[in-house]
Amino acid sequence: MTLEAIRYKAGSLQVLNQLQLPHHTVYDEIRSVQDAYEAIKSMKVRGAPAIAIVGCLSLAVELRTGAGGDDPVTFIRESLCHLTSARPTAVNMGRAARELMEFAENESMEKNSEQLRESVIAWIEDMLERDVNDNRKIGNYGAQHILSGVPRDSVTILTHCNTGSLATAGYGTALGVVRSLHALGRLKRMYCTETRPYNQGSRLTAYEAVAEGIPATLITDSMAALTMREMDITAVVVGADRVVANGDTANKVGTYQLAIAAKHHGIPFYVAAPSTSCDLSLESGRDIIIEVRPPEELTSINGVPIAAQGIEVWNPAFDVTPHQLITGGIITELGVFLPSELQAALTGRLTAL
Amino acid sequence: MTLEAIRYKAGSLQVLNQLQLPHHTVYDEIRSVQDAYEAIKSMKVRGAPAIAIVGCLSLAVELRTGAGGDDPVTFIRESLCHLTSARPTAVNMGRAARELMEFAENESMEKNSEQLRESVIAWIEDMLERDVNDNRKIGNYGAQHILSGVPRDSVTILTHCNTGSLATAGYGTALGVVRSLHALGRLKRMYCTETRPYNQGSRLTAYEAVAEGIPATLITDSMAALTMREMDITAVVVGADRVVANGDTANKVGTYQLAIAAKHHGIPFYVAAPSTSCDLSLESGRDIIIEVRPPEELTSINGVPIAAQGIEVWNPAFDVTPHQLITGGIITELGVFLPSELQAALTGRLTAL
Repeated sequence: MTLEAIRYKAGSLQVLNQLQLPHHTVYDEIRSVQDAYEAIKSMKVRGAPAIAIVGCLSLAVELRTGAGGDDPVTFIRESLCHLTSARPTAVNMGRAARELMEFAENESMEKNSEQLRESVIAWIEDMLERDVNDNRKIGNYGAQHILSGVPRDSVTILTHCNTGSLATAGYGTALGVVRSLHALGRLKRMYCTETRPYNQGSRLTAYEAVAEGIPATLITDSMAALTMREMDITAVVVGADRVVANGDTANKVGTYQLAIAAKHHGIPFYVAAPSTSCDLSLESGRDIIIEVRPPEELTSINGVPIAAQGIEVWNPAFDVTPHQLITGGIITELGVFLPSELQAALTGRLTAL
Repeated sequence: MTLEAIRYKAGSLQVLNQLQLPHHTVYDEIRSVQDAYEAIKSMKVRGAPAIAIVGCLSLAVELRTGAGGDDPVTFIRESLCHLTSARPTAVNMGRAARELMEFAENESMEKNSEQLRESVIAWIEDMLERDVNDNRKIGNYGAQHILSGVPRDSVTILTHCNTGSLATAGYGTALGVVRSLHALGRLKRMYCTETRPYNQGSRLTAYEAVAEGIPATLITDSMAALTMREMDITAVVVGADRVVANGDTANKVGTYQLAIAAKHHGIPFYVAAPSTSCDLSLESGRDIIIEVRPPEELTSINGVPIAAQGIEVWNPAFDVTPHQLITGGIITELGVFLPSELQAALTGRLTAL
């Protein structure tokens, strides 16, 4: 069984409500751009690629009902602005909005309103398909690269946060690599960290593993180094919120610590991300601003206090892993590259390994 | 204000119920050895030194009422056996039981029952005082050692788990070092990890910090490496469940990962432990068996599920930090020693630095 986080048929969109996971599997109907905005803002849908897909698909659903009337371009522009404002730090939504707007404006030169709506809908549906295909390519490239270095029959992977079907249009990035290894019959086991404070690992990655029968073991974030020493970990594979030109990678907090521990144990450390998550406009990770989130994420769980009252809290959501620690490589839909090769690869000056 | 986890006056013993922390500050009366056994088993009292102290004090309370009658030695032996069985892995209780039994047997040669009871009570009360004094020495030695390497005015310490008044007879080991720095006016701030899965950091260390006005910030375990990079950490100081002859140290899971991250950042890593936690009978940490605890500690909190149902879990309670990573030193009541110096120091062949 493959877990579906986004169910889309022409004119109909449903999303798996991640606020109810892992306890309840509930799909919510998304009938409008406003529905999508609310689902993104409330974190029913999360994960940068998934946010962009759901946002754009909600626009397609409205366009199919004739939304925008005689001026669909204005409707599309206002909708995309609104969607982008739901979670301003999600890079992929902003990028998709810019690309889609440019496409719509070009199309409007030579098409009438009805034709424009149809071509924008096609563009969006193509985006969904492309994203899933890109993830499958990431999964395959990553799996092959990891297996090429391993004489043994099966591999053990350690991952962090949630980078699976629940964070993307489907299949996943780092978890896509795990899925590919499992499909090849070469995955011995996956270890996933809880990923405090928001517990994406224990709630979401564990949910995906159980749903699909992937052999998986949950550990706390603090057990990762011990797991590397005791459990014969073949590789560490994580996702990325943003990869910059020199290969420095912003990802869920804890990633940096995993990379240090992997280096200490001589275990290859991989980042899996579509090229759309690569931002060559920034030279190094020093330019990335770290988002600090509310203390309550640490001091309570489901509204129940779990920490001493009055304690101060620092809650950075991300950290930056320097490219020197990404020893395995950066897995993209174009192939697997060393951080030093990334820029040339993405600008077409390097062929995939 | 100093936090009192153990309140003892001749004939009267109360313990701060740690199951109610951090939400409620409740002292439970311990009137008998059986009361202490139950408090230890249910984890109202935790921390290896605190377990030993509370166990022995409960015996003193009963002896003061004339327990044991004409054969106090048998009563003492049976009581100590019972207390040791409450948490078999707590080394300190076993050691205290052996020493106290030997003392009681020697005393019984030349004293009557009443005199024996009195000298055993005196031995136990002395043990309480000695433990607090040893912790104060650990605090002072550690603080001086850390400050000696720091030209700046104040220091920032990162610690793990709970090693304070709540885990010892009072004052604490690693947290005792923090207390000493604070008392000297040289502590800028302490960062404490949540310490998943049992949250001793967010529940207990944070509680002690708030109670005593120690400037402190709570982070998740996954944020420690980022904190080392961003927050100008002077030293990492942790406690120990057991230090063996070569300096390898078993401590709360996550310690090993912190030591790796400290090494990566060139930050001195200290272990603070009384000599009673040192076990020279084991040559290296490879000989230490790691206790694996129930999955429920990860998958639920206060009985409420927080992880996907059906996920497998690995929950080791401790890990072993190799002596090479203990770059600051091992802080004992005899002084601060490099791991390579420990054995000679404890056998009296080396003078403290």
